[in-house]
Amino acid sequence: MRISRRLQELGIVLPQPPRIPPGVVLPFGWVRIHGTRAWISGHGPTDLDGSFAKPLGRVGAEVKPDEAYRAARLTGLAILGSLQRALGDLDRITAWGRVFGMVNCAPGFLEMPGVINGFSDLIFDVFGSDRGQHARSAIGVAELPFDIPVEIEAEVVIDELK
Amino acid sequence: MRISRRLQELGIVLPQPPRIPPGVVLPFGWVRIHGTRAWISGHGPTDLDGSFAKPLGRVGAEVKPDEAYRAARLTGLAILGSLQRALGDLDRITAWGRVFGMVNCAPGFLEMPGVINGFSDLIFDVFGSDRGQHARSAIGVAELPFDIPVEIEAEVVIDELK
Amino acid sequence: MRISRRLQELGIVLPQPPRIPPGVVLPFGWVRIHGTRAWISGHGPTDLDGSFAKPLGRVGAEVKPDEAYRAARLTGLAILGSLQRALGDLDRITAWGRVFGMVNCAPGFLEMPGVINGFSDLIFDVFGSDRGQHARSAIGVAELPFDIPVEIEAEVVIDELK
Repeated sequence: MRISRRLQELGIVLPQPPRIPPGVVLPFGWVRIHGTRAWISGHGPTDLDGSFAKPLGRVGAEVKPDEAYRAARLTGLAILGSLQRALGDLDRITAWGRVFGMVNCAPGFLEMPGVINGFSDLIFDVFGSDRGQHARSAIGVAELPFDIPVEIEAEVVIDELK
Repeated sequence: MRISRRLQELGIVLPQPPRIPPGVVLPFGWVRIHGTRAWISGHGPTDLDGSFAKPLGRVGAEVKPDEAYRAARLTGLAILGSLQRALGDLDRITAWGRVFGMVNCAPGFLEMPGVINGFSDLIFDVFGSDRGQHARSAIGVAELPFDIPVEIEAEVVIDELK
Repeated sequence: MRISRRLQELGIVLPQPPRIPPGVVLPFGWVRIHGTRAWISGHGPTDLDGSFAKPLGRVGAEVKPDEAYRAARLTGLAILGSLQRALGDLDRITAWGRVFGMVNCAPGFLEMPGVINGFSDLIFDVFGSDRGQHARSAIGVAELPFDIPVEIEAEVVIDELK
């Protein structure tokens, strides 16, 4: 149970499942597992109770760059929470693969890489530089659901359950 | 031939291959198969003859949310048509994996999840909740080719041909 | 060493690693390898020394469509350079899989497929129509890091090192 110990060391508590606003139906799961592969649905930043973390809005306007970095880290915690629930044990993650970071940008805001570093830094802190290594893209998108400032999807390689 | 029967039950007829406007060259295929993996190129909504379905434009402006939901469903039918042609038999699809939904958004339109549900609902109807399960992201993009309101790409796991 | 010979035939010299502007930290690698899979981080167009190629800006405004086609080709060369360094030998690439092309669009610019063809045409030239075959999406995004006109991420299948 190395990863759970590492989370304790870092003082990290994983949040509850994302709480989607009333009236919205998401018919799919937060993590799709098949064989040794786990695809992670787009997540946003959440507080411990799973509700979307404030501030909402566009980075470079309503949301400052350092708040956006924190939002990307919170998005990572939300994803780790979903993986924990889907896998039972985060140590089943053999390798991180692909990370795709989408930033809700005000026009002219170009510091998307610095924002999504909030996610990458967390993954490296928790999984180390080998297991946590990943390919990444960061882009600025026109709009994100629920006006969240950051949305991240990812793919990891897992141990199959025997 | 379970999926073909299911399509008949649902009264679904799959469209012809997407018809790209004259002057545009797309050098790649609609589905890339390698081993047990099939990556699906970005598709838009098409009518039965493969031409892009109306209305075109931005969701929240020229295209209403319920029209966009239908566009996402039509995009799903276009993808099923491409998969049928590429695989020969949709029952070779073992599992849906990743779905990425891009919505051509008017500024301030945030209901991308409800739009892309037009795709997810179709996949669950046809493949059921196990095989059809998928990870998904939905985002608002600045522009889409041909001014289509929705573009979706995906990845599925397939049985290899012996 | 078929691919290196093919590059010579085409007169192609691969660029140095991308040079990120001072003050920006990218904690992840350009290529993530695990087993037979290689995920390629989002790359932009670079000159031979690895610095981002001019012109920067939005396609359809500061960047003309034919300059954007060239930018997509340069992005392909940057990616081939990263793959060469990560794999040691481009012949380890068994198959191209997924290509995702993001175009920094001026409002109303819709010719993203023609732009990203600069990448696809290169891959087909170098790898041929079988190995180079790929699924692709092309979209217009609101902003790209460093104001690059094109960003491309991809996934390839590789031979595992024995």
